[in-house]
Amino acid sequence: MGKPIRVTVWNEFLHEKHTDHPASKIYPDGMHAAIAGHLSKQPDMQVRTATLEERHHGLTDDVLDSTDVMTWWGHMAHDKVDDQIVDKVHQKVLDGMGLIALHSGHFSKIFKKLMGTTCNLRWREADEKERLWVIDHSHPITQGLGEYFELPEAEMYGERFDIPQPDELVFISWFQGGEVFRSGCCWHRGRGKVFYFRPGHESYPIYKDANVLKVIENAVRWAAPVDTPVPQYGNVQPLEKL
Amino acid sequence: MGKPIRVTVWNEFLHEKHTDHPASKIYPDGMHAAIAGHLSKQPDMQVRTATLEERHHGLTDDVLDSTDVMTWWGHMAHDKVDDQIVDKVHQKVLDGMGLIALHSGHFSKIFKKLMGTTCNLRWREADEKERLWVIDHSHPITQGLGEYFELPEAEMYGERFDIPQPDELVFISWFQGGEVFRSGCCWHRGRGKVFYFRPGHESYPIYKDANVLKVIENAVRWAAPVDTPVPQYGNVQPLEKL
Amino acid sequence: MGKPIRVTVWNEFLHEKHTDHPASKIYPDGMHAAIAGHLSKQPDMQVRTATLEERHHGLTDDVLDSTDVMTWWGHMAHDKVDDQIVDKVHQKVLDGMGLIALHSGHFSKIFKKLMGTTCNLRWREADEKERLWVIDHSHPITQGLGEYFELPEAEMYGERFDIPQPDELVFISWFQGGEVFRSGCCWHRGRGKVFYFRPGHESYPIYKDANVLKVIENAVRWAAPVDTPVPQYGNVQPLEKL
Amino acid sequence: MGKPIRVTVWNEFLHEKHTDHPASKIYPDGMHAAIAGHLSKQPDMQVRTATLEERHHGLTDDVLDSTDVMTWWGHMAHDKVDDQIVDKVHQKVLDGMGLIALHSGHFSKIFKKLMGTTCNLRWREADEKERLWVIDHSHPITQGLGEYFELPEAEMYGERFDIPQPDELVFISWFQGGEVFRSGCCWHRGRGKVFYFRPGHESYPIYKDANVLKVIENAVRWAAPVDTPVPQYGNVQPLEKL
Repeated sequence: MGKPIRVTVWNEFLHEKHTDHPASKIYPDGMHAAIAGHLSKQPDMQVRTATLEERHHGLTDDVLDSTDVMTWWGHMAHDKVDDQIVDKVHQKVLDGMGLIALHSGHFSKIFKKLMGTTCNLRWREADEKERLWVIDHSHPITQGLGEYFELPEAEMYGERFDIPQPDELVFISWFQGGEVFRSGCCWHRGRGKVFYFRPGHESYPIYKDANVLKVIENAVRWAAPVDTPVPQYGNVQPLEKL
Repeated sequence: MGKPIRVTVWNEFLHEKHTDHPASKIYPDGMHAAIAGHLSKQPDMQVRTATLEERHHGLTDDVLDSTDVMTWWGHMAHDKVDDQIVDKVHQKVLDGMGLIALHSGHFSKIFKKLMGTTCNLRWREADEKERLWVIDHSHPITQGLGEYFELPEAEMYGERFDIPQPDELVFISWFQGGEVFRSGCCWHRGRGKVFYFRPGHESYPIYKDANVLKVIENAVRWAAPVDTPVPQYGNVQPLEKL
Repeated sequence: MGKPIRVTVWNEFLHEKHTDHPASKIYPDGMHAAIAGHLSKQPDMQVRTATLEERHHGLTDDVLDSTDVMTWWGHMAHDKVDDQIVDKVHQKVLDGMGLIALHSGHFSKIFKKLMGTTCNLRWREADEKERLWVIDHSHPITQGLGEYFELPEAEMYGERFDIPQPDELVFISWFQGGEVFRSGCCWHRGRGKVFYFRPGHESYPIYKDANVLKVIENAVRWAAPVDTPVPQYGNVQPLEKL
Repeated sequence: MGKPIRVTVWNEFLHEKHTDHPASKIYPDGMHAAIAGHLSKQPDMQVRTATLEERHHGLTDDVLDSTDVMTWWGHMAHDKVDDQIVDKVHQKVLDGMGLIALHSGHFSKIFKKLMGTTCNLRWREADEKERLWVIDHSHPITQGLGEYFELPEAEMYGERFDIPQPDELVFISWFQGGEVFRSGCCWHRGRGKVFYFRPGHESYPIYKDANVLKVIENAVRWAAPVDTPVPQYGNVQPLEKL
């Protein structure tokens, strides 16, 4: 077996600290702990966490330089994330680091910067059912799943989701209230890969769902960098005689 | 015939003002004049120009609100373009305005913001031959062209071109010195369409070439907005009973 | 205004001839008459129809040679369509003719041949509601629509729809019974464009719905050929000295 | 380590049997032997070969059922390949088997059936130089390569290559004689993955080139099936109460 994939699970970690918020009951140690807990059980992964209120949001140069794949959850404090850190993470992705944006991370600075669009959408909190359909049955991110899986209570996200057309569309969600959503989307950016995965509202135990955790696990493997060529940019000599 | 397409040809217009620069001889009135001159002859287009050193770079709210398609040429002064104007143009594109980025416009703030990547590339100035091959023979941007066309002397741009995979790849360039380049690329962003077109170095009479002008003309028609739905974002009520 | 788009509306036209089938009441003159009736009102279109039981299925060389865009509806008699005619239509598409496959046309020989996959799907007839969401708000096929439109009673088609990833995904359907479907899909094939549009079951008055007719009208314009280059294939001389 | 990838290297194996053909000197045991020789050295691969003149072209049901990835080289005898075998291979790909079409395999029945287009192109035999540029630096098929690699003498294949737009475009070739070509193209089809790789003319020792072999090795890993869901098609019951 090769070297383990070094995963950094990043979480805003604010909702969970408010004892009157349901998140504090569902995730007393934070959503990052739930996600990292599952990934840590994978023999091919080495996992650590980082959160907003740590120094440099826990994303020092050392951490960034030793991260193969980062997962990102944020919601109420997107604008508290330092622009310089965002620029560094952005560059890391273009240099090959995988990025998995989760749920309300659609509005994070890093995801919007990588997409170039507003990443806006429709939403509703009404404890409704979501069913995620697999659309690309050849995709490694669907490994071990069934044709669809359900979340009995979810926040709704609906189209129009203002993103660039995904390079690979993996899941489409059906919502009880009448909407659809591109819930699993892949993009290649520079030497890096980006996956957006919709589930994960802070008020439901979504990150304890076996299918959701399996998708995140699969996505980490898909997004892990391999030894691809590093492009040389700038002024160059001709390769042929002119 | 419907309403004319309102085109704003934007140009940095600096090289051409330096009397010791070849651009001042080739384009005494600026590259924008050459481009606008051709487009003005189209019965379905209404054309004006705007340049960096005008107030608000010539891109007042009035101008932006009455522009259907904008072409963008910049090179030596990308960082002189006001961020607020860039943000406005960005929003206009997402709202439906077509944007055609030309040549060194690959490094403009607006193009980089829309792409989410560095938009970097290899380059060389060596008066070499470029041959642009049509790749998508169903694409309206290729209307009236042959299978390829040549520019006898061009600056070289070579891969890796650090862009998101185009939604539609229209041209690939062959360069005498040994490189290739994705020279005509289409993206959908929000309600808007974006086209990048490589040719156009300031030291060669590229914008007097009939094929180059034809491509820009075709791209204006392709990128022109139509009456597509305006997405509603944010919190919504269910469409079905929950 | 340019030359009109010459549209051939092809229909199997069998269900409608059975007086005990609901289609005979809804479409006494055939579904093709309903579709052609709408398209004929467009000043930029010239419309005729063709059906299975005509000689050569109504698709003589003369008809094929003078067709810019063909719409295709078939269901119970896909295998009655002559392979030679299918091959001719296939070649016409690659030569630039637009093709719009409707509803159960997903299983037509011509559509399967163009896709290279089984084009299989899930289905159910249960008079349920369908809501088609616009996904690509920059796409000309969405002109004049709202963000979504509904069909009160429809046959259900559900994912997995076994097609190549569309070049442009325009609509996703929500179904009352819990499924989703990529209902409007665009592909470029050779010099031609192909659009698949889901609605159109023979037992519901789908082709009298204003939104459905508008989409077909828009798709005809999108798929209409323009004067793009004709590729030369085979053995060629070098363009550069070797 | 998981189970090895079971690779079947298929070769027409006719040129090499003609003692007056250069292929008989370069590949006395056939091109398949050269390719299989390299893949056999990979600890994660289990390799066998199959050729046209074997019974069932060496592709019995047993062989097909125990193949994870197939590579395909054919040229002068595409029409000698039995349609029933082609249909079986086609179904296997849709069921999840990877397929790597090599060089003149662009005109094989199986590749054309999967693409739905003519797969035609321009070509020339003139011992000219080819340079393959990496276009997608995030793609696992580029692992271990440089930014480009060269073949000193190659047959030329030039655009227009009549294929569907690749889901992922990995390489673009530059040719000395003035053409370009999409030389490494990925598609998802059903549960399977397809890669087309251009190099491999029978008159040059292309399958002894380290970069070419590395790409094929990488492509086998990329195309290997994983345990993705098997779609259920046909008539289904609603998942929600109607």
